[in-house]
Amino acid sequence: MMTQMAREIAEQPEAVARTLDQLRPLRPELARLAHGTRHVLFVARGSSDNACVYGRYLLETHAHRMAALAAPSVATHYRAAVDLSDTLVICVSQSGETREIVETLEWATAQGARTVAVTNDGTSSLARAADLTLVTHAGRELAVPATKTYTTQLAAMAILATSVAPDPHALDADLARVPAEMAQLIERRDGVDEAVEALAATTETLVTGRGLLLGTSLEIALKLEETCLRPVRGLSYADLRHGPIAVVDADMAAVVVAPQDGPVLGGLTEVAVSLRERGTRTIGIGGDDAFARACAVRMPGPNLPEPVAPLAAVVPGQLMVEALARRLGLNPDSPRGLSKVTQTDG
Amino acid sequence: MMTQMAREIAEQPEAVARTLDQLRPLRPELARLAHGTRHVLFVARGSSDNACVYGRYLLETHAHRMAALAAPSVATHYRAAVDLSDTLVICVSQSGETREIVETLEWATAQGARTVAVTNDGTSSLARAADLTLVTHAGRELAVPATKTYTTQLAAMAILATSVAPDPHALDADLARVPAEMAQLIERRDGVDEAVEALAATTETLVTGRGLLLGTSLEIALKLEETCLRPVRGLSYADLRHGPIAVVDADMAAVVVAPQDGPVLGGLTEVAVSLRERGTRTIGIGGDDAFARACAVRMPGPNLPEPVAPLAAVVPGQLMVEALARRLGLNPDSPRGLSKVTQTDG
Repeated sequence: MMTQMAREIAEQPEAVARTLDQLRPLRPELARLAHGTRHVLFVARGSSDNACVYGRYLLETHAHRMAALAAPSVATHYRAAVDLSDTLVICVSQSGETREIVETLEWATAQGARTVAVTNDGTSSLARAADLTLVTHAGRELAVPATKTYTTQLAAMAILATSVAPDPHALDADLARVPAEMAQLIERRDGVDEAVEALAATTETLVTGRGLLLGTSLEIALKLEETCLRPVRGLSYADLRHGPIAVVDADMAAVVVAPQDGPVLGGLTEVAVSLRERGTRTIGIGGDDAFARACAVRMPGPNLPEPVAPLAAVVPGQLMVEALARRLGLNPDSPRGLSKVTQTDG
Repeated sequence: MMTQMAREIAEQPEAVARTLDQLRPLRPELARLAHGTRHVLFVARGSSDNACVYGRYLLETHAHRMAALAAPSVATHYRAAVDLSDTLVICVSQSGETREIVETLEWATAQGARTVAVTNDGTSSLARAADLTLVTHAGRELAVPATKTYTTQLAAMAILATSVAPDPHALDADLARVPAEMAQLIERRDGVDEAVEALAATTETLVTGRGLLLGTSLEIALKLEETCLRPVRGLSYADLRHGPIAVVDADMAAVVVAPQDGPVLGGLTEVAVSLRERGTRTIGIGGDDAFARACAVRMPGPNLPEPVAPLAAVVPGQLMVEALARRLGLNPDSPRGLSKVTQTDG
């Protein structure tokens, strides 16, 4: 029997297409709201936070606008008084009911910010409190691990960033190809079984990536950890090289996530080579032929340029996590210890 | 025989006092440089990045100024064109020669930013390229794990943040007490041996903290990992509660870092209780009496209010790491795989 998580993974091409269609017309309104602001501040936790990592890189590299991830405790615990009159604050929560995120949005409004909610529930507290809401059209998600609510958040990030870019339509042709690329990855499942075997043979896992796909690697790490209940580290390849690579050895499996093009591909290929030299089982997602040769196991990524690749590149990772959970005798739909609406404070 | 790392830990009270004395007179110059800017952007890797996490929280909570940590690849790989004319960019590197950090400073200058270098070498490339340099007066550090260069960076962060705060002198009395508090922690070593035994009994370690002391917990995690060569996770207690707590169990040891006062202490005490309920060996650093009771092993922190506590709260963690490395038969002065000047790209 198919798990709920597998069903929801398979629903993603349609969910992302629907979300892009519904949100594209909001670009002028987003541009008006952002007019006069110079900075973007994201507020989120968990998978939503990983979606914001993509939003941040896309804003900085494609829309020439500085962006940052908020430290929510600055709002919720320290109640800092700061001037946010030049800032567009984007609060992301699947349910729209995570109290910490709603509180931070209210704090941001009080500090003079203009606010956008990204949520799967257009009637939620978060949506009601924001100046503008981008509703992700994922439909109801029943499995605990976020899949389609995450990729539709990425679609919202792409709409958001392109709204304030010099040419809002520059990525439209590539974005339109995302659903078909996702569908193909879901259908083919290339390399998924081999990746699962490589991961099942070890208990220590590391996931790394960089730049526009850093959020993808953090999301795969989080998903592996919360679904397969094993400690997993997600970190940028730059941070990895800066120290933790000292603890990488033959007992570990490493998942390396790479785009098929762009300025970080070369470095990620080198990191795959150097991990393999340390005896680590290296599982590649995406990349080009040279990257594939550097990895012991390789799952192809989408045929999409780096700026939109994250919308589909997480799919092989999701398939791998779902299959690994079953392989380990776990139920991917409801890992222990997690509820669907997460409250940071009890 | 005393290790070099132990010697350098012991040199910190003097190094921090010297750095505070040397940098305090630069406050008016820092304030002039920052005048007209509204945002602060930090650029660093590794331990220096952890120092910046403190700088970020102190700026936001004490100086009412928004701050963020840069994604260096945006500069070095994507070469993004962004407007930084409203931003003070702080580049932190012990050696001042990490190429990625120097390149990012040059990029920031080209984008219109005003720049500050924080480095232990006032003649370094980073110092020469910046508008203003805060030299940390740590003296030469020979052990690979950063200790006194890290705490003197924290001193520089305190000077930086207070320079742009409404009252630059509001924390001076507390800052003046830091060296004596450090010295007392180094002399007493309370709980260090018990903490080492608790950590030696497991291979899985987690370090958590929040807010102003989040950077301290990340730094202790990094230090444990690179010095004791074991995988360690450092994460905020909010992120921990949002998912990864599912993988915490009796096989793990958890280090929880808490201030003696302030708005995050209650939540950190709760997290210590809930980790212990899962059977985890809980090692507390700092906190108050209730926090101490919640932990299986407790190392007292400095008697300092939360905004300046990070300058000394890392000390019990350093003592623990140095002793654990010896207990595991490792040489804390030169763990494998790390050189003193780290280049992210080869």
